[in-house]
Amino acid sequence: MKCTRCREKAVVALPSHTAGFCPPCYLLFVERQVQKAIKDKKLFSFDDRIIIALSGGKDSLALAWQLKKLGYDIAGLHIDLAIPQSSPIARDHVERFCRAYDINLSVLEMEKLGLSIPEVRKKIKRPVCSLCGKIKRYYFNKFALDNGFNVLATGHNLDDEVARLFSNVLSWESAHLGDQGPLLPEENGFTRKVKPLYRLSEFETANFCFIAEIDYGFAPCPYSGGASFTYYKTLFDELEHKQPGRKLSFYEGFLKRGRKAFTRLDLEEGVKPSPCKSCGYPTSEESCGVCRIKHMLEQS
Amino acid sequence: MKCTRCREKAVVALPSHTAGFCPPCYLLFVERQVQKAIKDKKLFSFDDRIIIALSGGKDSLALAWQLKKLGYDIAGLHIDLAIPQSSPIARDHVERFCRAYDINLSVLEMEKLGLSIPEVRKKIKRPVCSLCGKIKRYYFNKFALDNGFNVLATGHNLDDEVARLFSNVLSWESAHLGDQGPLLPEENGFTRKVKPLYRLSEFETANFCFIAEIDYGFAPCPYSGGASFTYYKTLFDELEHKQPGRKLSFYEGFLKRGRKAFTRLDLEEGVKPSPCKSCGYPTSEESCGVCRIKHMLEQS
Repeated sequence: MKCTRCREKAVVALPSHTAGFCPPCYLLFVERQVQKAIKDKKLFSFDDRIIIALSGGKDSLALAWQLKKLGYDIAGLHIDLAIPQSSPIARDHVERFCRAYDINLSVLEMEKLGLSIPEVRKKIKRPVCSLCGKIKRYYFNKFALDNGFNVLATGHNLDDEVARLFSNVLSWESAHLGDQGPLLPEENGFTRKVKPLYRLSEFETANFCFIAEIDYGFAPCPYSGGASFTYYKTLFDELEHKQPGRKLSFYEGFLKRGRKAFTRLDLEEGVKPSPCKSCGYPTSEESCGVCRIKHMLEQS
Repeated sequence: MKCTRCREKAVVALPSHTAGFCPPCYLLFVERQVQKAIKDKKLFSFDDRIIIALSGGKDSLALAWQLKKLGYDIAGLHIDLAIPQSSPIARDHVERFCRAYDINLSVLEMEKLGLSIPEVRKKIKRPVCSLCGKIKRYYFNKFALDNGFNVLATGHNLDDEVARLFSNVLSWESAHLGDQGPLLPEENGFTRKVKPLYRLSEFETANFCFIAEIDYGFAPCPYSGGASFTYYKTLFDELEHKQPGRKLSFYEGFLKRGRKAFTRLDLEEGVKPSPCKSCGYPTSEESCGVCRIKHMLEQS
């Protein structure tokens, strides 16, 4: 197979784009997908101050690499969850990456904040992935607001987004459906959130890291359930194989035609958040999720 | 495994209902699912005159058997499509079934109406399944209106409905999503359409026919593509296996929470049909689909 762009030998085949690329043209392909996402969805501009949530995995590092190369004003934020084995590996990859590419990095240590995930898991009898997600979202948002960043970027890829969309569709979660997309504008005390990799599959970001020689971490969380999301990804991989381009058309179709239906319902039925009585974080209850977690930890 | 209801030996296991049944209790289970569909969705009453579209397959015959047993005012309508091999087998099953159960049957022969499907297929270069569907819907509706039936019942089962819903979701067909469900009320020259088997899977209706000793036809249409629908059914069979009850909760969730979003959009963006200039059938164009097919056949 020859490169669609320069006719050299292709090393990556992309049936979803009816294309194949040699290494340099593949890097260009990824760059253009990211640029298209940023431009089409008006994610951010060169005037914005962008903080990137860096987990140390392929997606977040690929995102930082690409936005740095494009010249955006970025910095990195890593949350050290204090999970044995996986957290030190993740942090190490993030730190080495940021040193290598001269990216300003901040690290928040959950242990120091009294929220080490093994503690949370031991003391609170609820699904730990959902608690951990709450904590991370809280501190990403808080850090951005406290430090003058007006955009929070995450490395969610097309497979993440499709699995989440499918999960929301399966249970017809109207509020979540009205809320899903590569751009969540700043609102009600939440910073703007963006997902510039939403047009790229896991296969594509992994390949990108390989070709760009980005040394990413692969230390799966020992607590990770995520079984149904992993299963939905497999399911859409099969579907993509039979109907190349389906993942992207499903997701883009949702953004163009599906979401607006739910956004309206949401506006009619939704509750506006108000500040948490303890910390001021926006919440639909009296106390926000993280203050409730802290309270439960104190009581246990 | 013992019967959930009477503790005799079970012959059918239904993980989606966390139940198993012996033959008599299984028939009762199916009866109750049909009654629940009729009652919950207000499909029809004992005052309605119901025409059942009988293809000769397991679903339509199971439906007729059940509605007859429950004492509804029913008659059958079969459309003979004149497809070699499959049509004579289908018609034969329908005729024998209606004789055996004393059900009034009408047969419309497409050949006599100048619309034999092999002719249509030969002369019109469009996907034949979509043309055939148009023709059947047209004559089911017309027959009901011309003959004083106010309800048209079809044997669509849960798998049919879930595959169609998934297909519409994949491409976010707002108009079709606003329009899908077990009850389409009488409107704009279309008779009321109902799907009383929507709570039962293919496995369940096939088992029902086996236990009720209903001799149904299995002569797949030689032109049938339907590849993607078949694939979506397989895909949801896998999902159902991992998450028992998922098909029904996906579909019921759509009816309860999803559809209303699209119904609204549809009302805002939709076009009201007006009568076809040739035959009076409701259509959004000048001529209805079947008159256009006839016109194309004349010109070929």
